[in-house]
Amino acid sequence: MNAFIPTPGDRFTFGLWTVGWQARDPFGDATRPPLDPVETVHRLAELGAYGVTFHDDDLLAVEPDRERAIAAFRKALDETGMKVPMATTNLFTHPVFRDGAFTSNDRDVRRHAIRKVMRNLDLAASLGARTYVCWGGREGAESDAAKDVRSALARYKEALDLLSQYVLEQGYEIRFAIEPKPNEPRGDILLPTIGHALAFINELEHPEMVGLNPEVGHEQMAGLNFVHGVAQALWHGKLFHIDLNGQHGPKYDQDLVFGHGDVQSAFFLVDLLEHGGYDGPRHFDYKPPRTEDPEDVWVSAAANMRTYLILREKARAFRADPEVQEALRASRVDELAVPTLAPGETLAGLAADQFDPDAAARRGYHYSHLSQLALEHLLGVRDREGR
Amino acid sequence: MNAFIPTPGDRFTFGLWTVGWQARDPFGDATRPPLDPVETVHRLAELGAYGVTFHDDDLLAVEPDRERAIAAFRKALDETGMKVPMATTNLFTHPVFRDGAFTSNDRDVRRHAIRKVMRNLDLAASLGARTYVCWGGREGAESDAAKDVRSALARYKEALDLLSQYVLEQGYEIRFAIEPKPNEPRGDILLPTIGHALAFINELEHPEMVGLNPEVGHEQMAGLNFVHGVAQALWHGKLFHIDLNGQHGPKYDQDLVFGHGDVQSAFFLVDLLEHGGYDGPRHFDYKPPRTEDPEDVWVSAAANMRTYLILREKARAFRADPEVQEALRASRVDELAVPTLAPGETLAGLAADQFDPDAAARRGYHYSHLSQLALEHLLGVRDREGR
Amino acid sequence: MNAFIPTPGDRFTFGLWTVGWQARDPFGDATRPPLDPVETVHRLAELGAYGVTFHDDDLLAVEPDRERAIAAFRKALDETGMKVPMATTNLFTHPVFRDGAFTSNDRDVRRHAIRKVMRNLDLAASLGARTYVCWGGREGAESDAAKDVRSALARYKEALDLLSQYVLEQGYEIRFAIEPKPNEPRGDILLPTIGHALAFINELEHPEMVGLNPEVGHEQMAGLNFVHGVAQALWHGKLFHIDLNGQHGPKYDQDLVFGHGDVQSAFFLVDLLEHGGYDGPRHFDYKPPRTEDPEDVWVSAAANMRTYLILREKARAFRADPEVQEALRASRVDELAVPTLAPGETLAGLAADQFDPDAAARRGYHYSHLSQLALEHLLGVRDREGR
Amino acid sequence: MNAFIPTPGDRFTFGLWTVGWQARDPFGDATRPPLDPVETVHRLAELGAYGVTFHDDDLLAVEPDRERAIAAFRKALDETGMKVPMATTNLFTHPVFRDGAFTSNDRDVRRHAIRKVMRNLDLAASLGARTYVCWGGREGAESDAAKDVRSALARYKEALDLLSQYVLEQGYEIRFAIEPKPNEPRGDILLPTIGHALAFINELEHPEMVGLNPEVGHEQMAGLNFVHGVAQALWHGKLFHIDLNGQHGPKYDQDLVFGHGDVQSAFFLVDLLEHGGYDGPRHFDYKPPRTEDPEDVWVSAAANMRTYLILREKARAFRADPEVQEALRASRVDELAVPTLAPGETLAGLAADQFDPDAAARRGYHYSHLSQLALEHLLGVRDREGR
Repeated sequence: MNAFIPTPGDRFTFGLWTVGWQARDPFGDATRPPLDPVETVHRLAELGAYGVTFHDDDLLAVEPDRERAIAAFRKALDETGMKVPMATTNLFTHPVFRDGAFTSNDRDVRRHAIRKVMRNLDLAASLGARTYVCWGGREGAESDAAKDVRSALARYKEALDLLSQYVLEQGYEIRFAIEPKPNEPRGDILLPTIGHALAFINELEHPEMVGLNPEVGHEQMAGLNFVHGVAQALWHGKLFHIDLNGQHGPKYDQDLVFGHGDVQSAFFLVDLLEHGGYDGPRHFDYKPPRTEDPEDVWVSAAANMRTYLILREKARAFRADPEVQEALRASRVDELAVPTLAPGETLAGLAADQFDPDAAARRGYHYSHLSQLALEHLLGVRDREGR
Repeated sequence: MNAFIPTPGDRFTFGLWTVGWQARDPFGDATRPPLDPVETVHRLAELGAYGVTFHDDDLLAVEPDRERAIAAFRKALDETGMKVPMATTNLFTHPVFRDGAFTSNDRDVRRHAIRKVMRNLDLAASLGARTYVCWGGREGAESDAAKDVRSALARYKEALDLLSQYVLEQGYEIRFAIEPKPNEPRGDILLPTIGHALAFINELEHPEMVGLNPEVGHEQMAGLNFVHGVAQALWHGKLFHIDLNGQHGPKYDQDLVFGHGDVQSAFFLVDLLEHGGYDGPRHFDYKPPRTEDPEDVWVSAAANMRTYLILREKARAFRADPEVQEALRASRVDELAVPTLAPGETLAGLAADQFDPDAAARRGYHYSHLSQLALEHLLGVRDREGR
Repeated sequence: MNAFIPTPGDRFTFGLWTVGWQARDPFGDATRPPLDPVETVHRLAELGAYGVTFHDDDLLAVEPDRERAIAAFRKALDETGMKVPMATTNLFTHPVFRDGAFTSNDRDVRRHAIRKVMRNLDLAASLGARTYVCWGGREGAESDAAKDVRSALARYKEALDLLSQYVLEQGYEIRFAIEPKPNEPRGDILLPTIGHALAFINELEHPEMVGLNPEVGHEQMAGLNFVHGVAQALWHGKLFHIDLNGQHGPKYDQDLVFGHGDVQSAFFLVDLLEHGGYDGPRHFDYKPPRTEDPEDVWVSAAANMRTYLILREKARAFRADPEVQEALRASRVDELAVPTLAPGETLAGLAADQFDPDAAARRGYHYSHLSQLALEHLLGVRDREGR
Repeated sequence: MNAFIPTPGDRFTFGLWTVGWQARDPFGDATRPPLDPVETVHRLAELGAYGVTFHDDDLLAVEPDRERAIAAFRKALDETGMKVPMATTNLFTHPVFRDGAFTSNDRDVRRHAIRKVMRNLDLAASLGARTYVCWGGREGAESDAAKDVRSALARYKEALDLLSQYVLEQGYEIRFAIEPKPNEPRGDILLPTIGHALAFINELEHPEMVGLNPEVGHEQMAGLNFVHGVAQALWHGKLFHIDLNGQHGPKYDQDLVFGHGDVQSAFFLVDLLEHGGYDGPRHFDYKPPRTEDPEDVWVSAAANMRTYLILREKARAFRADPEVQEALRASRVDELAVPTLAPGETLAGLAADQFDPDAAARRGYHYSHLSQLALEHLLGVRDREGR
């Protein structure tokens, strides 16, 4: 028996653009030929994935006729049972989006962007997608003189409001998920972090229709703790979808295989997703390294899922370990769930408390022990020694 | 006539802890003696400041008796006309806060923290403060195992809700301003950026009573564009206060003199504050470098204000320059204020538009010219050549 | 009279790939058509540049026949008087370099890379180039398992030794200049900073033939102080060439116009280059932003030179200002040039010194005043007020 | 049998200042009482350490009389058999070093610094230390105007040359090891990375006497790959000593327990140290988190050693795994050790090669498989499944 073989029940999904990335980068030409979405669907199904996701333009990778491309894609889905739980729009590759899509200074471009999304919403709905991701990679600027950020946010809101209205009018069962990123390809991107996007959503006409699609590497590019960010998104009820991959801190967007970046953070992330109430797809938004050949692509795809399953098993063992439970209590991690004010207590009651801060200051938190236990679960040495 | 002499009308304020910093750092002992808050008030008044701000503990720098310290401080304020528009609480120096204040795993500590704020709110109100800053520097963790972030946010909300209730009960005309920071002194601090704090506020009982006090260096420590962040805070109506200083990107918190970090960003920040509707104090939260002696401290304090005034003049000249106005139009910066949908237009109307993306893609944005104009205003060479 | 009009005497040079960048980025297609090197030579000459530099492949931008392309390029040089002080090799665009060139795990690729450099060295020499830049953008790895770094450095050394031998054998008057970069397009690039490259050079067969070509943005991507780095390169006698541009800290390689990033650092850099003994070309390795159209390209090119000239004038005024000179003395900046041991003094003599560290510790360094003077020179407000 | 119990044969050492850190940080007071070096020696010996290291001032933590402090320390060493393989000087805590030690603008301070090192070299030699670390934490600046970097490097060289001369004159068997750091406590520190320090050493009078003491976190604060840096130091024959700890990217210096930062990098580091020819002490330069109490300190100390032993076992299993060996060959990792030129081959021979780059470009490198194998060894799941 092997616990690390993915099945559709694990709900692993991949973007067509991930395995299909031809490995063109800012300094180099493509190292791999285009990949037919039909092949992708079949290969991922064989590997145990649950579904695929796509940008409108991804479908046209090898078949320029949109209707034929869609038909072939549908057929592959039918043959494999693969789902399309999420779709999104390419608002960044075409030169027309050089200054943004929803927030381009050019109003014609903004209008074009909204139309492009509407068209793909129709297709997404017809394919059964329930989540529609909006990554505003071109919404930003390189110079503070070039963009009136408050106007840009107003236009961003206008676009989301119009698209929400469109979904409601059409009767689609679709929610939007904003994907934040701090920079690249723009010098500074609007809604750069989970926090900024969460705040923005509160200003929308239909905030209940809009949540987040945070990505591991994007938050880590700003040096932020991704587990903290996802926990805050969950706290707001806004973790609609998630992009799993790997990154080594503030630099260009690496899109490594999940776990091939900061694996300790990946462990706590899986722990949070599994035990924190997230029930959506586990979506991999990674890139097979440019060094890899067409067969390596599938090795890398499989590695994402396998690593997730390994970490899931470890997270379960971590939570079930009595020594961990004792350590969590010793560190008073559970005490944080107890309200600070007692039931019925007043502020006056609180103010009347006796308290010796110097005495309380001597209480240690024993986090070293707890952290080491977590690390040893990650490293697989806890089950080795009968402790 | 010299345009760069500060006056109280410029509303420049300083924390007692800024000029009073004794220059103790993680690797070194203090290089300067304690500074009497009374002297600070007088010296800053002479330099043209509008007011001072304080943590509860700052007042006790040289006089351990709280009542006497307060009396002396009030006297200095009366003698100089200096104001106290903001106050805050020290919830980080005492070892009791080693795991946080509002979100410590230790419930006793959380209760103590709230009491400490309530006590200083009374003093703040009596001194006329209208803004009360909450910097949660110890609210965070070094290990993802050590802190249940969702519980922590719940306790953070509980604390803010209780303090809002207290202010309402006491009838104080005080609003809270959360100051985000990504890390240091904790490995990861909760509410790490402007965005995260804005989102959090929406979950509070009295969101209208809580806004932000963003700090230049704190956002730049995460590699984020501070001008963008402040613009978003303004867009949400949440820029209640601001901390001005300097920083050189992701590293320890430098608290340089305003303008001694990224001066181009400082220029656009002043432009935004002056022309974007912010009417609160211009508060400097910097540290005189550890190399400096007690007299250098006042040189550095004056430098903050002078630099602000220089940049203010430049921002005004930039906005008034006809060539800049023409460049802004050529870059369609103003076009972003025009709604994407025409008045009365429907989505169906939008969908029916004719548009050639390839043709539109050829339109340039001319940002190089605009950026260079801004830079030349900053460098003071626009007025040199009659262009 | 206008001091900011560039002339060939200012020795400004540009890479063909800079103005010729078609603005293809990791998420987007080209926004500008290919640019004929012949046009580039003429346009840059008109703008006052001294010369151009090139990768072997740059010459083929619009004319695929190498001989014809070279002939047309030579003709343009002759017509304009433009020089080619530097050349370099494209060892990164073609997929064959996906794992590196001199340090690819594939020995055949390493051999091909050396041949490609040799071929272009011949052309470079025939065009009069004296500096040959080696940017090893693909020499690196994404995984620590994938590359034996010590073997890689041995191969890197072998390549440089062979190429030095080739230059000597051919009798070319050419020196090599290594261009360090920490990452992008590889996850981690070998010789990531000025320091690592300087150290490497010491292991070569002909260290005197190899120096550095540091780039502003590359060091700033690692959060390092570029002025410090260039000063160390000068101290080692290894500043053979320099790449000027702009960057906003650790993120993707921005290649902004010179001065459009950290302009304060740019000011101190120009001060160092002008007063520190560097006499090579001032080479701009920037990219016209992707938002810009073909005419904007020349606006951005001109901005680089103009900003350099502005900063040069400011640096001269800074050094000439008696108040600055007094401030430098007060900060004992000049005292650092005095050897710590007196002439003829022994260690025993040093050991016998009387010294009161507590008394000496009270001496301030007055850097706030000095820094503010520098800032005000930068901002152009020193000459305004008769101080 | 438990493979993870440290013994002196493992050569684990700790600085007195690590476990003895009282947890004073830039925003908070000490949370733990001073720790007697005598207790440290005994406790670490019980935990299985090989030795301790110290700054001159560390010895005075609880006993202000230097002679008595030294006597008590010697006695503890004798009783436990603990060694002192390394010592260093505190040139950063006292305010006199506010602008640096060897490179202070104040010549008197530079002289004092050299004397302070000489005095502690005598003690270090008498305690048997063979390595003397120089961390120049205060050698740097916050403003580019404040420090003439070339003069500073000249003074730095002068100091190292004088100290080398002193060691030679005294006949001590001591080598120096420079510890680079990019920033903190100074805005920019001289010799910021492994590379800069390696380059500097080449300019010294006795380069053979000076090597490096790189620290995990210090390189990672600049976003650099520590394994690459250590490999380059080994390649130059300059890895004299090493500081092991943990860090989460560019931010303040965290000094986490080894492995509590980027554990995947720690795995490859242990692999390199164990299989790359380093035979010096494994020295932990970490800080017990400020949250911890005096007993937690020893838990955290033990965690460093245990994690190293766990990773050592994994690195051995990784190298011994036939599937890994096959994957390394498939990725041609070994081929990089083969010289690019064949024995006896000439450049003309190389130039005459036939080669089809397009064909060669299709060869993949299969790094995904190799990286995943390494990850699974790290996670302890390779031995689980009979593969």
